[in-house]
Amino acid sequence: MSWFESSIMARRGVAAGKVTSEHSMTEADQGKYHYVYGPYAEPVLRVAPGAVVSVETHDAFEGKIRSETDSPTALLNFPFLNPQNGPIYVEGAGKGDCLAVSIRSIVPRGPQPVGTTLIMPEFGGLVATGDTALLNPPLPERVRKLHVTAEHGTVWNDRITLPYRPFIGTIGTSPEIEAISSLHPDYYGGNMDVPDIAPNSVIYLPVQVAGALLYLGDCHATQGDGELCGVALEHPTVTTVQIDLIKDWTIRWPRLENAEFYMAIGSSRPMEDAARIAYRELVRWMAADFGYDEIDAYMLLTQCGRVRLGNMVDPKYSLGASISKAILHA
Amino acid sequence: MSWFESSIMARRGVAAGKVTSEHSMTEADQGKYHYVYGPYAEPVLRVAPGAVVSVETHDAFEGKIRSETDSPTALLNFPFLNPQNGPIYVEGAGKGDCLAVSIRSIVPRGPQPVGTTLIMPEFGGLVATGDTALLNPPLPERVRKLHVTAEHGTVWNDRITLPYRPFIGTIGTSPEIEAISSLHPDYYGGNMDVPDIAPNSVIYLPVQVAGALLYLGDCHATQGDGELCGVALEHPTVTTVQIDLIKDWTIRWPRLENAEFYMAIGSSRPMEDAARIAYRELVRWMAADFGYDEIDAYMLLTQCGRVRLGNMVDPKYSLGASISKAILHA
Amino acid sequence: MSWFESSIMARRGVAAGKVTSEHSMTEADQGKYHYVYGPYAEPVLRVAPGAVVSVETHDAFEGKIRSETDSPTALLNFPFLNPQNGPIYVEGAGKGDCLAVSIRSIVPRGPQPVGTTLIMPEFGGLVATGDTALLNPPLPERVRKLHVTAEHGTVWNDRITLPYRPFIGTIGTSPEIEAISSLHPDYYGGNMDVPDIAPNSVIYLPVQVAGALLYLGDCHATQGDGELCGVALEHPTVTTVQIDLIKDWTIRWPRLENAEFYMAIGSSRPMEDAARIAYRELVRWMAADFGYDEIDAYMLLTQCGRVRLGNMVDPKYSLGASISKAILHA
Amino acid sequence: MSWFESSIMARRGVAAGKVTSEHSMTEADQGKYHYVYGPYAEPVLRVAPGAVVSVETHDAFEGKIRSETDSPTALLNFPFLNPQNGPIYVEGAGKGDCLAVSIRSIVPRGPQPVGTTLIMPEFGGLVATGDTALLNPPLPERVRKLHVTAEHGTVWNDRITLPYRPFIGTIGTSPEIEAISSLHPDYYGGNMDVPDIAPNSVIYLPVQVAGALLYLGDCHATQGDGELCGVALEHPTVTTVQIDLIKDWTIRWPRLENAEFYMAIGSSRPMEDAARIAYRELVRWMAADFGYDEIDAYMLLTQCGRVRLGNMVDPKYSLGASISKAILHA
Repeated sequence: MSWFESSIMARRGVAAGKVTSEHSMTEADQGKYHYVYGPYAEPVLRVAPGAVVSVETHDAFEGKIRSETDSPTALLNFPFLNPQNGPIYVEGAGKGDCLAVSIRSIVPRGPQPVGTTLIMPEFGGLVATGDTALLNPPLPERVRKLHVTAEHGTVWNDRITLPYRPFIGTIGTSPEIEAISSLHPDYYGGNMDVPDIAPNSVIYLPVQVAGALLYLGDCHATQGDGELCGVALEHPTVTTVQIDLIKDWTIRWPRLENAEFYMAIGSSRPMEDAARIAYRELVRWMAADFGYDEIDAYMLLTQCGRVRLGNMVDPKYSLGASISKAILHA
Repeated sequence: MSWFESSIMARRGVAAGKVTSEHSMTEADQGKYHYVYGPYAEPVLRVAPGAVVSVETHDAFEGKIRSETDSPTALLNFPFLNPQNGPIYVEGAGKGDCLAVSIRSIVPRGPQPVGTTLIMPEFGGLVATGDTALLNPPLPERVRKLHVTAEHGTVWNDRITLPYRPFIGTIGTSPEIEAISSLHPDYYGGNMDVPDIAPNSVIYLPVQVAGALLYLGDCHATQGDGELCGVALEHPTVTTVQIDLIKDWTIRWPRLENAEFYMAIGSSRPMEDAARIAYRELVRWMAADFGYDEIDAYMLLTQCGRVRLGNMVDPKYSLGASISKAILHA
Repeated sequence: MSWFESSIMARRGVAAGKVTSEHSMTEADQGKYHYVYGPYAEPVLRVAPGAVVSVETHDAFEGKIRSETDSPTALLNFPFLNPQNGPIYVEGAGKGDCLAVSIRSIVPRGPQPVGTTLIMPEFGGLVATGDTALLNPPLPERVRKLHVTAEHGTVWNDRITLPYRPFIGTIGTSPEIEAISSLHPDYYGGNMDVPDIAPNSVIYLPVQVAGALLYLGDCHATQGDGELCGVALEHPTVTTVQIDLIKDWTIRWPRLENAEFYMAIGSSRPMEDAARIAYRELVRWMAADFGYDEIDAYMLLTQCGRVRLGNMVDPKYSLGASISKAILHA
Repeated sequence: MSWFESSIMARRGVAAGKVTSEHSMTEADQGKYHYVYGPYAEPVLRVAPGAVVSVETHDAFEGKIRSETDSPTALLNFPFLNPQNGPIYVEGAGKGDCLAVSIRSIVPRGPQPVGTTLIMPEFGGLVATGDTALLNPPLPERVRKLHVTAEHGTVWNDRITLPYRPFIGTIGTSPEIEAISSLHPDYYGGNMDVPDIAPNSVIYLPVQVAGALLYLGDCHATQGDGELCGVALEHPTVTTVQIDLIKDWTIRWPRLENAEFYMAIGSSRPMEDAARIAYRELVRWMAADFGYDEIDAYMLLTQCGRVRLGNMVDPKYSLGASISKAILHA
């Protein structure tokens, strides 16, 4: 039995982790992409639990950065950044439920060089920004356009090739009445940039509105912890996800499961608050579903918890705290 | 000549700081109050620059906390908190302009005890919260209902009466495509809780959408720096503001002017980032409009800048940095 | 009766706020200045409670910056910055006691221009630093040398003269076993840069070692909230303080009293932690000495607490939270 | 050739990574343990580069917590916590040099149960502390005493056994004139709690004083990322290190090398500042020693940098940023 067959999604999902229908969402199907996570957009697709959907995602710049001589400042127009597919309305989903999204595959699409990374003013982990508002002069802009294939990875230069380690940078459900920029991560998901949100994992998202309204986009070909300069290896993809619904599982923050571990993801500033959220959610999860008292969970995680820094560049920083299944199921 | 006649609003406003029309916005006119700052709500009023509007604001709990034995947890329903009046559409306002709002008066309304403050779980400056997510047990809930009049102030107990020092806790314009909870402060204003946003001051707000879409609410009868427990002396009011429009004055963050000083207001976390934003905006203002180079402004503010902490309890903290007019106009 | 006669120092001090002896501490008496607060230096003076001491303080650069063409980077040699007078051994002081220091006067000394402010790389509130470690290029260095007199204040330029508002930037007792750079503020005092530590106030400091070991220095002719560029108007002075001892008054952080208010001072990072410390200490003070329960104090400070930002530039930020005596003694 | 033979220590060390002498430092040799990192203590051992030293370390509580019914509050006496061995004077070391310490082995010592973890008030990552100073009630104290052996690891309970993954929690050199509590981490090392400071790694430490004055202690049998409750699996050990000296290699923060990667370690608050320090040091290292320009290094680390959170509980948080040798040496 694969780990997926014993996953929470398979055990508790309305569709029991089974595929009940298949859909595709091309650029043409999507039409206008979205730049906020919110309840004010019309669904582009309605599916039942058990649906598999193949989505044509754009890169975070919507393809506007075409060459290494392009100027990000000239071509990019805040807040119209990080275009998202969706929303997908999931039948039967209501406030207090949990949406389970199994990531099945991510494949680059479009002509080479398909990958983009860049430096632009007031954005990034080692520069002054709009929040860490300083008087220092900015770094110069710089753009890299890179060949990326699933087979060979990313050709960084003639010495270095980075393996293809794709994941979904931005995914989440709609807030109840807010519409939040797709540049933000928060309790509903969004721009978390946690590299574990990758093929062969399931992400669990809290549902705040009828139909859940799933958005996703911003796939990365690879990324270091923290997404240091603010721009990972952005690339357009076909991303295939399987959607299920867990009724009455009310979670406050996104959670993730793969073959190895359970993870809770927190997003906040300063970074220690993101870490506190992630670890507290994990403590509460262990208490609610795995028979721990909170203090026991707290003390055990002190010895074996793991932290993955997603980003240290967004309006909130994101970070996952996890515990190995081998320990939790011992 | 009063300071107002030489204010930026009077000198640069489309209506030159003059009153051109008068309006009232009662509870009935308002109908449904709003809980987000965004472009998705229909305007309840359209005015030209020069309009004076008297607004019936609710308290931050929409009047649901009626007695000291009420339970906030039982009665309050996030995210339906901090109800806002508006939006008011200001004719001629467009992206890149600045909305000037002169606060003329704030008067308590409704039956006594009209003031409310309270402690509720996971909210406040000296407790664990949803962001500073800890395992400590919460404080007990506590509600105070207090007599507040403009003449005599707030009767705290038989020894202490606090003077009536009313201000607008939450005021701002609509973001361009986002709709943000009225519990948040940010670049467009919102829940800043800066006590200087008071009668006899002008607040300047950046315009992101046609008509500006002004919202306001959440008036406080008095408040300490930081709004420590998260709930100032909340009370329903009639708040009267005069609206003007400054074309092509593009500001990134709210600014404020009164008889004594010019202030820039920043909102962020951690708190030093709010301070950096506020001071950097003030530096840039001095450079753009008062003939300083940035380094001179930076060095002068080191000797005479003033900081007012608005709140240390919201999802972002707010803080104003100011310089005295006596120095700047010397 | 002046406020001082009813101060905590006068009411609870071993010397009852009376002067029992007078001392001076010239540069020659001092000999070597100190750059750490710690127990490893020999006292330069031993006094009984009730002593008045006139101290010749250096400026924060020990006089090394003599002209506006001097280069701070070339002349200053970390960690040999912010020279301190002392330590002064106070007879009878022991761990758990409180040292009370009444500031009687601060007078500039030495040839004009006696005041110095400057910008140097990696230091200041609006630049990247050693902690907020970024890749942006630094600002250029700049030095200002300024005429400062007690009578006429600081001549900033031909339009602006800033009034003389002197205070002690750095003052504190020795930690028990640590020796901490005089650039730091912490629980024992140190480089707090709170402008209320001024003539006509009393600062209360926790005692950790026998004799308390009082250090002081770094007097500022004036300073804005936050000491924005990191360097206030530094100047050498004769600073006169009166020392008393309160036995068995164990405080965790510095406290201050003047005619108007009681203040607790916290130092930490991020800035919200400094604010939390200051306000929690004030809550506890109100509970211990003024008959409040902690929740009452918390709710009252929400309505009338005041915050003074000391610095936002040191290794820890410092901030005072205060309550007016008029309210507390109502 | 093992990785060690091509390590920076072996290539650049005065002793070329060779063993030139062997020493032991028993509890009796050590005598008094130390609670500060500073230059005011007499060396207990003087060695030349190339020395191997076997050190009897105490646990962080100096063995005072003997049973699960002991009260940490009653038995522990701040600041006399986290006892350190040393200082070891390394001949030839001077300011601006780098001390290289290869960790050869860590073995538990003393009677079972040799491991201790516990919860005490105002300490830990998910509770209010002295800095994150809140009014919430504390968690109850709890002590766990656990069997730990190198062969079988830590018996957590009858289901869970955690593998023995020992490392040095606290190690560093002396500051130049400061003496800092061994509870702190900073630029000189100290209480970093980074689990990679383990056998089969080399840590590089900046030298500030003649002889470097190496301290170490606080070994952990295992630890999760962040050391969540503040107390890992503390245990007394025999820890064996090999010391070398790299002349004129001036580094600002600790660095680490093992078979897999190069890491820079930063310590600060808020946590993003620790991350900024660590990544900026790694950028600068890549620029100085591996032929990158800073912007290239910044962009490459965005794609493949790794972050290890040491602790989120000390007065400063510690975090390592690393890059794989496979990429850097490609």
